[in-house]
Amino acid sequence: MTTKILAISGSLRQSSLNSMLLRAVARLAPPGIEVSLFPGLGELPLFNPDIESPEPPPVRRLREAILATDALVIASPEYAHGVTGVMKNALDWMVGNETFVDRPVALLNASPRATHAQAALRETVVTMSARVVEEACITVPVLGSGLDEEAIVAHREIGPALAAALETLAADVRPAGSRAVD
Amino acid sequence: MTTKILAISGSLRQSSLNSMLLRAVARLAPPGIEVSLFPGLGELPLFNPDIESPEPPPVRRLREAILATDALVIASPEYAHGVTGVMKNALDWMVGNETFVDRPVALLNASPRATHAQAALRETVVTMSARVVEEACITVPVLGSGLDEEAIVAHREIGPALAAALETLAADVRPAGSRAVD
Repeated sequence: MTTKILAISGSLRQSSLNSMLLRAVARLAPPGIEVSLFPGLGELPLFNPDIESPEPPPVRRLREAILATDALVIASPEYAHGVTGVMKNALDWMVGNETFVDRPVALLNASPRATHAQAALRETVVTMSARVVEEACITVPVLGSGLDEEAIVAHREIGPALAAALETLAADVRPAGSRAVD
Repeated sequence: MTTKILAISGSLRQSSLNSMLLRAVARLAPPGIEVSLFPGLGELPLFNPDIESPEPPPVRRLREAILATDALVIASPEYAHGVTGVMKNALDWMVGNETFVDRPVALLNASPRATHAQAALRETVVTMSARVVEEACITVPVLGSGLDEEAIVAHREIGPALAAALETLAADVRPAGSRAVD
């Protein structure tokens, strides 16, 4: 049994540190854990309740990608002390379809100084009834470190810390069918 | 001399209460104050630093609309205890062009119970170096009240309170050229 984890980056920038961090996370996945990156956050329309039905195809793709996995890892930068509009827009689309309900989520923070966005992101995800797995939420000092993907994967402390976070997150995934009665 | 105020709603919903509130605000503007609603937040692309230059036309239209006015009134709903992605996306685009720097801003809140988003919005706008005019930031109990635009305009307490907020905001607008030396 493989535990499937979907990784979502809150930045659309090609050389985003958060996206890079998540690519490294995918490579660090221990046996039995598979991490895939969701590539389509930039294709989502701006959230508008008036166009929720019929579901726009990019929204369907995000919803189905989440439903096809057991847990989520989110890494999002902080813009002007807030969650990125890109990240929040994706969450706004998922509020109504309840894909986040009871889903284990790890929030990674690539910048130790960015605390406002991380707190706001946590508040929203918890409000969406996701289960934030606190022990799997780690801050990784990537911003300003000069570390690239290879260096993160090979890093003596960061590499094992990320792998351990994935193990912790995967350990929180309950057997299918057991969620409702917990 | 007319003081020009741009009103921005953080919701794209056709029957948005926040948009309705801002239409009422526009009608309540006292002599010497002109309020226009920005209609194009839904046309903005999702923010991506890689496509900031050349400036996408919808971004240019928002920037120019802000620069053509003296102050801003923002009303935005709260989605899942957070600022709407639509609103934050617009702000993300304005961080780099500095249109918010030293600009008087009033934040209206249409829902007394929505405090998370309002606090996060304030934090971001302040981080963008706008000048939040506290006395012009008022909470108007529109959500759940059943009030429509006509009723807000005619309301014995809400109408004068909104007009007074506009007066307060306009009074904070400094003569052109004085900003830099304040």
